[in-house]
Amino acid sequence: MFHKVLIANRGEIAVRIIRACREMGIYTVAVYSEADRDSLHVKLADEAYCIGPKAARDSYLNFANIMSVATLTEADAIHPGYGFLAENSDFADICAECNITFIGPSAHAIQLMGDKSTAKETMRRAGVPVVPGSDGLIDSEKEAVETAEAIGYPVLVKATAGGGGKGIRIVRNRGELVQSIRTARQEAEANFSDAGVYLEKYLQQPRHVEVQVMADQHGNVIHLGERDCSVQRRMQKLIEEAPSPAVDEDLRREMGQAAVRAARAVDYEGAGTVEFLLEDGHFYFIEMNTRIQVEHPVTEMVTGIDLIKEQIRVAAGEPLSVKQEDVRLDGWAIECRINAENPEKQFMPSPGTLSFYLPPGGMGVRVDSSAYPGAEITPFYDSMIAKLIVWGNNRDEAIAKMKRALVEFAVEGIETTIPFHLQVLEHERFVKGDVTTQFVDQLKRSVEAKGDENDGTPRLDAV
Amino acid sequence: MFHKVLIANRGEIAVRIIRACREMGIYTVAVYSEADRDSLHVKLADEAYCIGPKAARDSYLNFANIMSVATLTEADAIHPGYGFLAENSDFADICAECNITFIGPSAHAIQLMGDKSTAKETMRRAGVPVVPGSDGLIDSEKEAVETAEAIGYPVLVKATAGGGGKGIRIVRNRGELVQSIRTARQEAEANFSDAGVYLEKYLQQPRHVEVQVMADQHGNVIHLGERDCSVQRRMQKLIEEAPSPAVDEDLRREMGQAAVRAARAVDYEGAGTVEFLLEDGHFYFIEMNTRIQVEHPVTEMVTGIDLIKEQIRVAAGEPLSVKQEDVRLDGWAIECRINAENPEKQFMPSPGTLSFYLPPGGMGVRVDSSAYPGAEITPFYDSMIAKLIVWGNNRDEAIAKMKRALVEFAVEGIETTIPFHLQVLEHERFVKGDVTTQFVDQLKRSVEAKGDENDGTPRLDAV
Repeated sequence: MFHKVLIANRGEIAVRIIRACREMGIYTVAVYSEADRDSLHVKLADEAYCIGPKAARDSYLNFANIMSVATLTEADAIHPGYGFLAENSDFADICAECNITFIGPSAHAIQLMGDKSTAKETMRRAGVPVVPGSDGLIDSEKEAVETAEAIGYPVLVKATAGGGGKGIRIVRNRGELVQSIRTARQEAEANFSDAGVYLEKYLQQPRHVEVQVMADQHGNVIHLGERDCSVQRRMQKLIEEAPSPAVDEDLRREMGQAAVRAARAVDYEGAGTVEFLLEDGHFYFIEMNTRIQVEHPVTEMVTGIDLIKEQIRVAAGEPLSVKQEDVRLDGWAIECRINAENPEKQFMPSPGTLSFYLPPGGMGVRVDSSAYPGAEITPFYDSMIAKLIVWGNNRDEAIAKMKRALVEFAVEGIETTIPFHLQVLEHERFVKGDVTTQFVDQLKRSVEAKGDENDGTPRLDAV
Repeated sequence: MFHKVLIANRGEIAVRIIRACREMGIYTVAVYSEADRDSLHVKLADEAYCIGPKAARDSYLNFANIMSVATLTEADAIHPGYGFLAENSDFADICAECNITFIGPSAHAIQLMGDKSTAKETMRRAGVPVVPGSDGLIDSEKEAVETAEAIGYPVLVKATAGGGGKGIRIVRNRGELVQSIRTARQEAEANFSDAGVYLEKYLQQPRHVEVQVMADQHGNVIHLGERDCSVQRRMQKLIEEAPSPAVDEDLRREMGQAAVRAARAVDYEGAGTVEFLLEDGHFYFIEMNTRIQVEHPVTEMVTGIDLIKEQIRVAAGEPLSVKQEDVRLDGWAIECRINAENPEKQFMPSPGTLSFYLPPGGMGVRVDSSAYPGAEITPFYDSMIAKLIVWGNNRDEAIAKMKRALVEFAVEGIETTIPFHLQVLEHERFVKGDVTTQFVDQLKRSVEAKGDENDGTPRLDAV
């Protein structure tokens, strides 16, 4: 097992990884930007080193400084968390060159899945259902027009290097197609230095359902059931749950097997998530996240399996601690991402100092957070301040517990998305488990369409 | 189901009950003494009423004021928590007279079990193993001498109305017997207005293992496995775990069945705990607690069953939500009682203001507490400020997790027992699961016997 792990990340996920390491008897090295000097991950780690100024490119994305710290502290592994360097194959390569274990899949697997058009082709060949679309990248506008006609409007133009909702356009008719491709190319070039785009059928009322997979170096690949992340705003997940209210035993097995095929197709190792859209009982591969995800705790709550510890174990060469037939889903888990944003003002970031902070507690309540009383929430990184995760014997109990915990969650000094979550949890469609990825945006549009004096905030009773 | 429940308690258990009620859609009424005006249970309840000055006898034990609030707020049930009125059969009677449901067993069951000598006799007749001892109360000193000779020294003199370590004496030889009986009688008379005492064989190296039972109004009685509470200081539990490292499947079934017989013998209803001493593979009934216990969460963590909700449901006349054959113990749970006491100074209470407070979080960590940043810890009630409960797949993982969580638990402004817990968790005997109820006191004596300049604090490396 590793002696010392460097955590190349910040915030709650850095704290999460430090906790797992401490429980495993592994020393931890934190790194931090100048803006994060007083962060909880810095206080909790055994050692902590500043790696640069607040801009992420100069600190959390700074290969040289991170590798210097790893070398000087004699860390034998690096956990990248999510975001930042987690899906950077060059960084995984550099770790290998420095003889430091990158806790994640091979650079090759990251690359294969990072290029979305290639990933789709790989999946198609592995027998994983994909959304109908262009055969790889679009070479000409003529080809685009033909493909779009063949699959039928609306279609999506997607940047092959895209992510986080950037480089993606919905095209509702032929008239919009050419201009949309040009815009998407420009945005992709500007954001990802890669203008490649492809076409895909636009599913209008899909659910986002993803499958957690875990693979070791000995050829074992298992899936740990699904997560439903349909409650999204502008492609950003807000609420996640496990299992999915739309998935039964048969579909779970089918999706799980498809996810395992996906992982095997790229010789995957470690924790990964195979994301699907689910519509009318059919599921379609959209992408694979080759890292731990923000919403991994809901899977942990229903399986009892610590995914971070499992990542560390398989990276150290150990076999998976559990076999497929021993994976059992028990009860229901829901996660709400508590962001420092004002839901009354289009989710505008709300940085500031936490003048009061008391997370909820009690049975079935888990809080993953780096917040503390007096902490400063800066505007430099993502706005998530805590993940509130609950477990109940069934979905109704989990919803009731989440509402109780949200009401109890005391945060003063900044605005948070807590009131928004409460609205969603009380919405009839959510309670019925009947939401699609369009749910949150529909609320907003429906309110705006009414042209009242409302500021555009979703009023959830309007849908 | 009840519309509104009054919680006749304070601190973490009041918060615990309010949480359960809120999740069940039941309104809550808090009551508080003048010293608890700013307490968390007051802030979290739907309504809150002051019931008297700080002295418990004038507030939390004040029948008249509590019943007035219950009547005026139209509460249809009262949850007594633990301590205060939880085992007061007169209070249960008054609730019945006022047509308000007392969430607990009948006054008759409370009485039968409250008188320890009677309880022992009832258990013996029900076929539950009891510690060898006198046949009921001691009538004369002559009888005491004969009984003690018969069962063999050392023996315990115990007040039949006793509790909390009061009215109890260890007698090591005949010479000490008569004086000990007189002292115990005086203490019992002073504390409980009942001078009745009985004799019992003193087990020298027992473990404290108790079984959680749950019974409904329809004749169903189940047990939910055992808790091991051997880590005690002066009869006060400090660390509890479930399951017990000393209990295997066969013994669990045997003890569970005995506990169910115990409950059936008094027509028990609701949540109760049948306490046993366990020595050399034999177990002996000591008493039954006819209420929810402080350490109930470790059972909840391994069974997934919410005991407070179950109490409320059965009090409302619903059948148990689970059958004996469906009770499954999964993993391992440990609870540490975090007290506002200074373990370096004989656990002297350490009241004060929480200048900083941040409970630990993450996977498998549960905190039941009424503490918050800025809260004042008063000297008027018990000194427990939080219960830290962890769950792991096995005992080793649970211990590692508890250590991690204790290290993370940030409390400033008062002294706490956190350092003491860390010492116990790292002690070889605890790690091996090899402790008895004498463990903590032995540490202390062993240090004192050395006559060094030590202040009497247990130095755990000394044993």
